[in-house]
Amino acid sequence: MFVASSVSHLSMEEIASASSGPKWFQIYYPANRDYARELLQRAKASGYTAIVVTVDGTTFSNRERITRLGISSPNLGAGNGVRTPGVDARTSGELKVDLNWDDVAFCEKVTGLPVIIKGILTAAMAVEAVKCGCAGVWVSNHGGRAIDNTAAAVSALPPIVQAVGEKTLIIVDGGVRRGQDVFRALALGADVTAVGRPVLYGMALGGAQGVQSVYARLKAELQMVMQLAGAANIEAITRDFIQELKA
Amino acid sequence: MFVASSVSHLSMEEIASASSGPKWFQIYYPANRDYARELLQRAKASGYTAIVVTVDGTTFSNRERITRLGISSPNLGAGNGVRTPGVDARTSGELKVDLNWDDVAFCEKVTGLPVIIKGILTAAMAVEAVKCGCAGVWVSNHGGRAIDNTAAAVSALPPIVQAVGEKTLIIVDGGVRRGQDVFRALALGADVTAVGRPVLYGMALGGAQGVQSVYARLKAELQMVMQLAGAANIEAITRDFIQELKA
Amino acid sequence: MFVASSVSHLSMEEIASASSGPKWFQIYYPANRDYARELLQRAKASGYTAIVVTVDGTTFSNRERITRLGISSPNLGAGNGVRTPGVDARTSGELKVDLNWDDVAFCEKVTGLPVIIKGILTAAMAVEAVKCGCAGVWVSNHGGRAIDNTAAAVSALPPIVQAVGEKTLIIVDGGVRRGQDVFRALALGADVTAVGRPVLYGMALGGAQGVQSVYARLKAELQMVMQLAGAANIEAITRDFIQELKA
Amino acid sequence: MFVASSVSHLSMEEIASASSGPKWFQIYYPANRDYARELLQRAKASGYTAIVVTVDGTTFSNRERITRLGISSPNLGAGNGVRTPGVDARTSGELKVDLNWDDVAFCEKVTGLPVIIKGILTAAMAVEAVKCGCAGVWVSNHGGRAIDNTAAAVSALPPIVQAVGEKTLIIVDGGVRRGQDVFRALALGADVTAVGRPVLYGMALGGAQGVQSVYARLKAELQMVMQLAGAANIEAITRDFIQELKA
Repeated sequence: MFVASSVSHLSMEEIASASSGPKWFQIYYPANRDYARELLQRAKASGYTAIVVTVDGTTFSNRERITRLGISSPNLGAGNGVRTPGVDARTSGELKVDLNWDDVAFCEKVTGLPVIIKGILTAAMAVEAVKCGCAGVWVSNHGGRAIDNTAAAVSALPPIVQAVGEKTLIIVDGGVRRGQDVFRALALGADVTAVGRPVLYGMALGGAQGVQSVYARLKAELQMVMQLAGAANIEAITRDFIQELKA
Repeated sequence: MFVASSVSHLSMEEIASASSGPKWFQIYYPANRDYARELLQRAKASGYTAIVVTVDGTTFSNRERITRLGISSPNLGAGNGVRTPGVDARTSGELKVDLNWDDVAFCEKVTGLPVIIKGILTAAMAVEAVKCGCAGVWVSNHGGRAIDNTAAAVSALPPIVQAVGEKTLIIVDGGVRRGQDVFRALALGADVTAVGRPVLYGMALGGAQGVQSVYARLKAELQMVMQLAGAANIEAITRDFIQELKA
Repeated sequence: MFVASSVSHLSMEEIASASSGPKWFQIYYPANRDYARELLQRAKASGYTAIVVTVDGTTFSNRERITRLGISSPNLGAGNGVRTPGVDARTSGELKVDLNWDDVAFCEKVTGLPVIIKGILTAAMAVEAVKCGCAGVWVSNHGGRAIDNTAAAVSALPPIVQAVGEKTLIIVDGGVRRGQDVFRALALGADVTAVGRPVLYGMALGGAQGVQSVYARLKAELQMVMQLAGAANIEAITRDFIQELKA
Repeated sequence: MFVASSVSHLSMEEIASASSGPKWFQIYYPANRDYARELLQRAKASGYTAIVVTVDGTTFSNRERITRLGISSPNLGAGNGVRTPGVDARTSGELKVDLNWDDVAFCEKVTGLPVIIKGILTAAMAVEAVKCGCAGVWVSNHGGRAIDNTAAAVSALPPIVQAVGEKTLIIVDGGVRRGQDVFRALALGADVTAVGRPVLYGMALGGAQGVQSVYARLKAELQMVMQLAGAANIEAITRDFIQELKA
């Protein structure tokens, strides 16, 4: 399963046509609602099956390492530039800074697809998201590179699982590097774990084959841990495997 | 907002006239009550709008690093020297070592200004200060350089907030270097965060402009964190953003 | 007391005949039940007095240090190769991956010996083992080298002791290097501590004499700690000696 | 106040005559009761005003650093050698390994002096000591050099204070190097803190004057901390000054 970002080098249509696998569309909400509508409609038309609304990335964080290193993003393509007539293409980079639940509802209204909210770290926010009709909650601290000293997503997971986990899809990302990390996230109540950097590392080292190799290894390690720990299937990976820190 | 110390190189009058911004007067309580009265009356007359009584600095701590480095304070001016006839100028450096609640009440009696007690680390002391009419409680461990192994002010904050925070102004200082630190202090219940060293660093590096730059950066970082965390305004920075350490 | 592994360089008969001391037989459960029966019957016939069923080693873990170092196990002997006619010797290395409580019960049925389950880290599993007739529970994380980030066996011990400790033999291994470690494990409720690596270190350094020396030292240290701590005998080593981490 | 050890280079009589200050006699209980009686009677006769019975030093611990360095104690004098006719002087080095409450009671019976038990780390033991008539409990882990991984005495203090602190003298030693350490021990409920190594360091560096200097500094630091923390006297150093570790 691939989750395509609205901020990408290739257009979402190019990405969608590259693979027949399941895919979701992740939107950094633009300030211009017409452009938002365009992106959502194009996602639906390209075959994406869910909309992920990122709510913890509505402004740039100060990424000082990048500034110090003097790195700038390579610009390889036109991405998802504006196509709607009448929308000023120059405003397409502006993010909506006052996101509210109507903006989230708008995604479902336009596409009819399930909406997943990404960047949640508290149970209170997860409960509100579910009330507003979100089909899933994506627990994430944006790779730990947005706000200093944020809680690890995996630490924020348990209260969220307790609050909404029974009926809502819970995704978690952050620090998943090994099959053990997947096992641990599932044991803490996540339904799905997302990975970011490992895939990029794999791509940098071996292209498409490198990416396949990363997934193959994660899967093999998860199976090994399940076998050694005595979990016969994914459903058997429960909180019983978590040992609280205590003497 | 500037808080001028009674132990300063310039006189409080010179400091007051340098800026039209709001300012408070912070008093290291002198042993001589006539001199105390003089300082308080001069503060009132110079336009300071609150009196801060520091209660955790009634003697010198052993600052061994300074001793080892052989540093002594530069003496750039006459400061707030005695002006009241009949008060021995040589005693102006003597601090009152047996501060009590009458001394605190005296500040309000002389000036009619709100009194804030500085250097509080326990809820019990905060409760007593409020009972004695203090308008605010300044939670501080004196920059961590007075007593070894003192609790961080920010750790001491929650029980104090719980005890008196609803009706009393709570200020906290210590370790505030980033907008994130301000956010965290506010989330833990402080109304105001004070900064000391960053301002001096700014001044050392860029004079008045350096100081402005420090404040501008703190403000920009705070706004960025609020935006990323989803707090629309200062009131929205609540304890919900604090993640307790637990598996 | 020696616990012989089913995966050994010498056959269990050779090992049994080397010493008149008490010995248990530890079985890595083979996939072929006829071969399992053979191993169990031979163990009984050779004088082993209990069967230890290892349940956390049903597949190979990825031991990356070994892979990096390019080490392979020396092969010094035929071990416990298949002797039962009709069992394909080439399948003797295959472990049963879907171990269940019938497999455990089978050990007792074949041998009539007490069965101890090894590789338990949760109270829930320990309770189930006791229900299924196990005489003992061996708390172990397989030397910490099977699954990354497993709880230390000694941390997993207290809830297991609380759940089944009163009537069931509790063995613990992992990190026992000093008499103090034995003392601590007993204080936390274990009946027996097992040691692995120290014995191998002793053997590598001084052969049989080295092994004796390791045991002698462990015993002397345990006696010293008991004397200094004021525990007159093994029964007096109780939870009272454990200090919880708290201010 | 000086506490003289029964294992000393000078005799207790020489030590007693060197100073008119208050002094206690600390006994490493000898195996021979006649010799124990002799030591106790001589202590009483020499003007010691209390007996300290050390219960956590009834055998030698393995002090590996000393062994590695090849250090042996210098032998400067005859110490408290046997004087009672009929007691074999060669047995004077043998310690009683099965100390019991009768041995403790014996100290009071022989001398009529208050008896303090030294080397206690649990509330249970402290309660028993008080039941058996001990006037004081000395919380100590023998300088951390007897048993590895022992709790710090200061960590063991709170439950002991809670159990017997109201009516029993509580002494604590271990790690007291600064006035702050004294303050902390008193805040945690100790009545007295004992120091060992700092005194020896002072003696090594400056003889009698060095020792005086160590005490003078400890006292000055304690006074400074009390002044800065706002404790007007020793009684005011309470648990309120202790901040529990919590977010």
